[in-house]
Amino acid sequence: MAKLRAAILGYGTVGQGIYRILQDKREELHRSLGLDIEVGAILVNDLEKPRPDTPGVLITDNFDDILAIPGLQVVFEAIVGEEPAYGYLCRAIDKGCHVITANKVMFSRYHIDLHERAKSKGVYIGYEATTAGGVPVIKTLKNLLQVNSVQRIQGILNGTSNYILTSMRTDNSAFDEALRDAQALGYAEADPYNDVSGMDAFHKLMILSALAFEEQPEREEVEVRGIDTITLEDVKRAEQEGLRYRHVAEIVRHPDGRLEASVGPQLVGPDHPLYAIEGVNNAVAVDTNYIGTLTLVGPGAGMYPTASVMVEDYAEIIGKRAGFMISI
Amino acid sequence: MAKLRAAILGYGTVGQGIYRILQDKREELHRSLGLDIEVGAILVNDLEKPRPDTPGVLITDNFDDILAIPGLQVVFEAIVGEEPAYGYLCRAIDKGCHVITANKVMFSRYHIDLHERAKSKGVYIGYEATTAGGVPVIKTLKNLLQVNSVQRIQGILNGTSNYILTSMRTDNSAFDEALRDAQALGYAEADPYNDVSGMDAFHKLMILSALAFEEQPEREEVEVRGIDTITLEDVKRAEQEGLRYRHVAEIVRHPDGRLEASVGPQLVGPDHPLYAIEGVNNAVAVDTNYIGTLTLVGPGAGMYPTASVMVEDYAEIIGKRAGFMISI
Repeated sequence: MAKLRAAILGYGTVGQGIYRILQDKREELHRSLGLDIEVGAILVNDLEKPRPDTPGVLITDNFDDILAIPGLQVVFEAIVGEEPAYGYLCRAIDKGCHVITANKVMFSRYHIDLHERAKSKGVYIGYEATTAGGVPVIKTLKNLLQVNSVQRIQGILNGTSNYILTSMRTDNSAFDEALRDAQALGYAEADPYNDVSGMDAFHKLMILSALAFEEQPEREEVEVRGIDTITLEDVKRAEQEGLRYRHVAEIVRHPDGRLEASVGPQLVGPDHPLYAIEGVNNAVAVDTNYIGTLTLVGPGAGMYPTASVMVEDYAEIIGKRAGFMISI
Repeated sequence: MAKLRAAILGYGTVGQGIYRILQDKREELHRSLGLDIEVGAILVNDLEKPRPDTPGVLITDNFDDILAIPGLQVVFEAIVGEEPAYGYLCRAIDKGCHVITANKVMFSRYHIDLHERAKSKGVYIGYEATTAGGVPVIKTLKNLLQVNSVQRIQGILNGTSNYILTSMRTDNSAFDEALRDAQALGYAEADPYNDVSGMDAFHKLMILSALAFEEQPEREEVEVRGIDTITLEDVKRAEQEGLRYRHVAEIVRHPDGRLEASVGPQLVGPDHPLYAIEGVNNAVAVDTNYIGTLTLVGPGAGMYPTASVMVEDYAEIIGKRAGFMISI
């Protein structure tokens, strides 16, 4: 039976989701793709930490062990932060592995660099999970860019911020209380700074910019504001006026070619397409020349939505018959 | 230069859109896909009818002339109704052509039959344009079905009905007046029966059912109601209560495997995801096991949105290097 070996880097919420989906869907993926996928190793930070059982899988805190497993061809990366994730992915690509990442902080900076490296090695990078969680905005953009050009992208790109704003309005929760709920539900990172400061949405907007416009605006020229200055009173006052706060990331290509981006809270009314986007949902609206405006809405975080699009990336790479070595 | 020859069947709004996009994007598609595409022939109903100039293209009312053009490999079909469209596509497939269709009435009935025929000939069928116009619901469903299973699909699938309902509410137009506007704007078919009776949405729902559930419910068991019984007074009364009429097509897979489908008007409030879907827009919400609910919104009709997704289908087929004969 033709078999592929994969490794998972990072075994938090998303890493565990990938493992579970690959186990649950192994038979089905084998049937539909004609290849069996086996998780050979998982990279963790702390070997002593208790974790769900993964029979037959090498658990290691040393990346050299990962690269040494025989027949490794796919690396799923679900680590937080630029390093060591970037260094690991470079080494995996250099070894001829396809990589599938959920790491927006790293990818928003090394997007172009990693793509060039992957191209030179004839491997693919899947990065659907970096932006808008379970919402397939990357695949949709890639597809429509084959025929359309994009003028503007506007979205709710941070599920935690949207969850907090929703919870403040519907449950009368104070900001801190709503944030703690979001963390307990696994939506917010352990360090919530990136979420509530707007930086997380900014990273995702930069990834969308690189894809849609093949360039990114100068980082220091983008105004980034978070939701951390919005009080329960602000939210309630807006509600009385029939309005809702939404945290919106936006980028426009002006007719002269200049890119203009901003990230911050906006007040919207019932006819605004982002008014009804509630809870941990993300939404991305793309203005194109032929199709007009296309909007995608779905869960922007969570174990299974994020892990699911990473396994879809894997299926897409297989669909390309991307130079896998097949051992029968 | 590697060149592909295509034919367009039907030269109404959508057929003309395909021709224009293929002309406008010819250089770009050649660069990105590595193949040049040339429209060799267009099939029309009435040779005498005035139409935009198409230099060097055979204009014919005889399908035999289409099949006889040398090197034909792709057929774009934008005819209305089951026949002669179905017969033409069968003959094109038997000749080894890939086919890309926008014909929902035909495709909702011959979905499975055409797929089997195409498979036996090693060619592809593109049908993104049959359902929800410029909204890429077919590609998105195909992609997420690789990992997810679908429990429910709910959508606004007829742009004309939504345009009429919107126009009644916002412009105080009577039903007939709003319908005439929709026809003048090219949204409604010349014969609006399919649109306003709910049959058009029903056909699209059956196409989604075949894709998501690999089967269709018995046609006579589906309750189909249109918007033709809704009066301006109904719309205004709903507005005073903060509600809006939406024409919703819905299909559910029950835990026992049974499919249940319905098509008809529903009253929705501001927190319903379909409340803010205005004008000629379509929306499709898909409930899945891993991702949760994913919603896509965009223009459900019009020359360029529909034609654009057909050219994207072409790009996708090329991406599969689908057994094209390449003449250098």
